[in-house]
Amino acid sequence: MIQKKISTAVIKRLPKYYRYLGDLLENDVVRISSKELSNRMGVTASQIRQDLNNFGGFGQQGYGYNVEYLYNAIGKILGLENKYNTIIVGAGNLGQALANYTNFDKRGFEVKGLFDVNPRLIGITVRGIEIKDLDEMGSFIKENSIDLAILTLPKQKAPKVANDLVSYGIKGIWNFAPIDLKLSNKNVIVENVHLLDSLMTLSYNIKERI
Amino acid sequence: MIQKKISTAVIKRLPKYYRYLGDLLENDVVRISSKELSNRMGVTASQIRQDLNNFGGFGQQGYGYNVEYLYNAIGKILGLENKYNTIIVGAGNLGQALANYTNFDKRGFEVKGLFDVNPRLIGITVRGIEIKDLDEMGSFIKENSIDLAILTLPKQKAPKVANDLVSYGIKGIWNFAPIDLKLSNKNVIVENVHLLDSLMTLSYNIKERI
Repeated sequence: MIQKKISTAVIKRLPKYYRYLGDLLENDVVRISSKELSNRMGVTASQIRQDLNNFGGFGQQGYGYNVEYLYNAIGKILGLENKYNTIIVGAGNLGQALANYTNFDKRGFEVKGLFDVNPRLIGITVRGIEIKDLDEMGSFIKENSIDLAILTLPKQKAPKVANDLVSYGIKGIWNFAPIDLKLSNKNVIVENVHLLDSLMTLSYNIKERI
Repeated sequence: MIQKKISTAVIKRLPKYYRYLGDLLENDVVRISSKELSNRMGVTASQIRQDLNNFGGFGQQGYGYNVEYLYNAIGKILGLENKYNTIIVGAGNLGQALANYTNFDKRGFEVKGLFDVNPRLIGITVRGIEIKDLDEMGSFIKENSIDLAILTLPKQKAPKVANDLVSYGIKGIWNFAPIDLKLSNKNVIVENVHLLDSLMTLSYNIKERI
């Protein structure tokens, strides 16, 4: 399979393909035509064919796509066969909820540590992991080869801690703080989940529809 | 102020403007030039001028934007002066974490009820709100004029409950279930937060960068 440079728009759609193919697999669907996949996903069949052609084209005329093969291939493209040692920084409500969410582990994001500054939280155990003092984060990252940090701190605290994480050699930050992080090292990947932005979009659309 | 039909791309950027302007307000900044706002937000100054011109143009040549005025105007466009009576359906880890997140209340999304099917959760109180049996959801929505539901159920349960919500007259669903909801009424607004999709995008970008 020859892999070309893939456009951002295609990459953004890959998790959706992966999700739909995973559902099909769970329902023991062995193969699917681009037309049927198109109906389910609400995108055009030609879009699907174009997208998947980026990866060599998995379909066969008159047969369709082999669901399991395509699912595994997209998983591989997404890097899901890799394991990412992960810490959660900010062990409040959201941090603890994410620590309890086992689906992340299944995708290879294994939570190894939880950190906070709140003395009332330090020492508490969430799913077998003890919440540690933020002061211990640097040594923990090095000793446990941590790749990734989930940042669930308030926006006031997030920028400094994010740059600390960068200096400790982290590769990526999944950022839930309601702020756009400006990192000293542009090679560190940031993926934002701006919950309030999403809620405001919902608000706008409800207002317009009423 | 004459309001034209605004493009989706502009609307998607409004929450970000609102967030940056809110930060400026907190720091007692009274006015800002489009150039400085552009530096902070990482978008071009002409983009900012174009975007804000959609709403009549708030800036004055040589003066810049009045931060508070612009903040309030965008808030109004986003419908944030409205109050949305909200319920959370699915009171597991994520549902409880969201119930505890007071920033949603500040934006007008007031959590009035929490629902689950798990007998171990029913009766527990989160931030003063008792978790109720899902069977009581329909009457609760009608009696309390609920506008909006936050859906934090597993994907197997989400589609049926989403259509129940529609039949009870809900206006919008903020969906955290890892599934694209297909609703019987297209007038109900759905805003998705697909956490696993976001995590997979992060995984892809880390894989490509390493």
